[in-house]
Amino acid sequence: MDYCSGKTFKYAHASVESFAAVVGKAENEGPYGGEFDEVIEDNKGGCDTWEQAEAMFQRKAVGHVLKKSELTPDKIDLVFAGDLLNQCVSSSYGLKEYYMPFLGIYGACSTFAEGLLLAGAMVNAGYAERCIAVTSSHFSSAERQFRFPLNYGGVRPPTSQWTATASGAVLVSDTGRPPFIRAATVGKIEDMGINDLNNMGAAMAGAAYDTLSRHMKHMEAEPQDYDLIVTGDLGLVGSQLLCDLFGRDGVDIEKLHKDCGLMLFDRSTQDVHSGGSGCGCSASVMCGHFLKRIESGELKRVLFCATGALMSTTMIQQGGTIPGIAHAVELTSY
Amino acid sequence: MDYCSGKTFKYAHASVESFAAVVGKAENEGPYGGEFDEVIEDNKGGCDTWEQAEAMFQRKAVGHVLKKSELTPDKIDLVFAGDLLNQCVSSSYGLKEYYMPFLGIYGACSTFAEGLLLAGAMVNAGYAERCIAVTSSHFSSAERQFRFPLNYGGVRPPTSQWTATASGAVLVSDTGRPPFIRAATVGKIEDMGINDLNNMGAAMAGAAYDTLSRHMKHMEAEPQDYDLIVTGDLGLVGSQLLCDLFGRDGVDIEKLHKDCGLMLFDRSTQDVHSGGSGCGCSASVMCGHFLKRIESGELKRVLFCATGALMSTTMIQQGGTIPGIAHAVELTSY
Repeated sequence: MDYCSGKTFKYAHASVESFAAVVGKAENEGPYGGEFDEVIEDNKGGCDTWEQAEAMFQRKAVGHVLKKSELTPDKIDLVFAGDLLNQCVSSSYGLKEYYMPFLGIYGACSTFAEGLLLAGAMVNAGYAERCIAVTSSHFSSAERQFRFPLNYGGVRPPTSQWTATASGAVLVSDTGRPPFIRAATVGKIEDMGINDLNNMGAAMAGAAYDTLSRHMKHMEAEPQDYDLIVTGDLGLVGSQLLCDLFGRDGVDIEKLHKDCGLMLFDRSTQDVHSGGSGCGCSASVMCGHFLKRIESGELKRVLFCATGALMSTTMIQQGGTIPGIAHAVELTSY
Repeated sequence: MDYCSGKTFKYAHASVESFAAVVGKAENEGPYGGEFDEVIEDNKGGCDTWEQAEAMFQRKAVGHVLKKSELTPDKIDLVFAGDLLNQCVSSSYGLKEYYMPFLGIYGACSTFAEGLLLAGAMVNAGYAERCIAVTSSHFSSAERQFRFPLNYGGVRPPTSQWTATASGAVLVSDTGRPPFIRAATVGKIEDMGINDLNNMGAAMAGAAYDTLSRHMKHMEAEPQDYDLIVTGDLGLVGSQLLCDLFGRDGVDIEKLHKDCGLMLFDRSTQDVHSGGSGCGCSASVMCGHFLKRIESGELKRVLFCATGALMSTTMIQQGGTIPGIAHAVELTSY
């Protein structure tokens, strides 16, 4: 079939029909403040707990895409959803009221790209007419689960990243209008031997390099064929490593490269160390900022590669490392 | 396209090319002992920890399907994998050495059906030539994560289920030979208001009823059109509820119904209370027992519906309930 090309999937019938981002206060105080669909100032957003708040972020993001497309939940054939919390509960609790066919996914911070590529695949192949992909993360729920209780006040090292309190959702269908989902490459697990929960960028850079390289090779494309190569969320440490890895091949991607983790917050005024992270980081930057510009044609061809640190506190306590993964999705205005 | 029919996907080009199950000692002492590809008697299997052992179960199950199909890992286009551990680490740690394109999925004990239906979809649509779906669970790693430390010796109530120490894997491709994956229905999240971590069967029965009903409606089939309706893993409590729910519609499924949770262990001699559970339970019963019989034609048409309790200890501690989900996959010998 025309959309089969080994390990890079090509799509001829998949567009992002609508997209929305819901973010917290700090995210809206960053460089892209004002570009999001909804800002929830209080980090519990009126809920009793952070976990319930994160579920609400996801429910609201999906609510916005349904509203923009003037659809009720029963018109959605399938939703792919995932998050960082144990047993992906912001997804299951956040979306259960919509009562849509639901497939849970897990790729740590790469989850948004995983959802986007699967939604594109299912729509392109005709299994689903309309498919939603959504992810979320929350600083407070993630920090206590993965690192320390917040009130312990642990010192964060310079390599650490700040989990975004945010959710992003897309509704994928065959509208024939941009943003088009043109191709996608599924990542392989790369273990760079990192075992520091505060150095995720280094754990993920190798995976991003591998996936981006394979994607461009399969597409017979060079970096300069893209307006931008957008990663999420390598942060400062991981971004530098990624550019270095391409540099070893004599390929300079620095001018074309943007990282959602470095975009969402202003590192000079916001205390986020190496940058943002979390499933909601690249999801909100894509849905708040980039998809609009691809829709309008301001950006014509963007290679988006979300990266995930497949870490678990249990494995780290047992002396394990942090395997990384990255999935790439190519988005175009034509 | 011909394989699109609303919310039940139909497949014309997807078969289970090979399948394998790896189980622990207790699982092999159950009624289907001797039907599995490998038995690991020690529950750490020579590893330092239960989590590492579970990862090894998954690695071995995939090793068996690769060996049966005489393939090296680089011939696999895509693997869908998931498990019950926080951040799905038995999948990421278990499979990282194979270095295959990897998509993590999460559906609690429904994960095997989710993987099977996605692998079928990706092969049927031509995105992948060969796709693996694999899941695992481990009694000891699950019990300490979800309930109590084992050496605490907490009393298990009669409604509780015993997490299977097992892994099952399938390799899906378009062989044109049985077992064929003919159709699949994605479940919706059903919340029956259960908040007892030791009563998962009740939390999942409603989801199984909904998915099975929708699947048969879309397929224009009656229960008696199937040789068997196989659920996993409702256990005794959930199975009785499922039969009661169909009974309200005047439909008797009791004679056709089998539950993997009730099959894997002998409840009269093994102390598993309401039956088995865990991602590895239905995976190992399908891959150890049923798929062989569909392959040989002894069973012609089987409707498999794996159920998942989307629970999290955090949400339960916050007063939350346990949402359930169930995905159905129809397997045939013709």
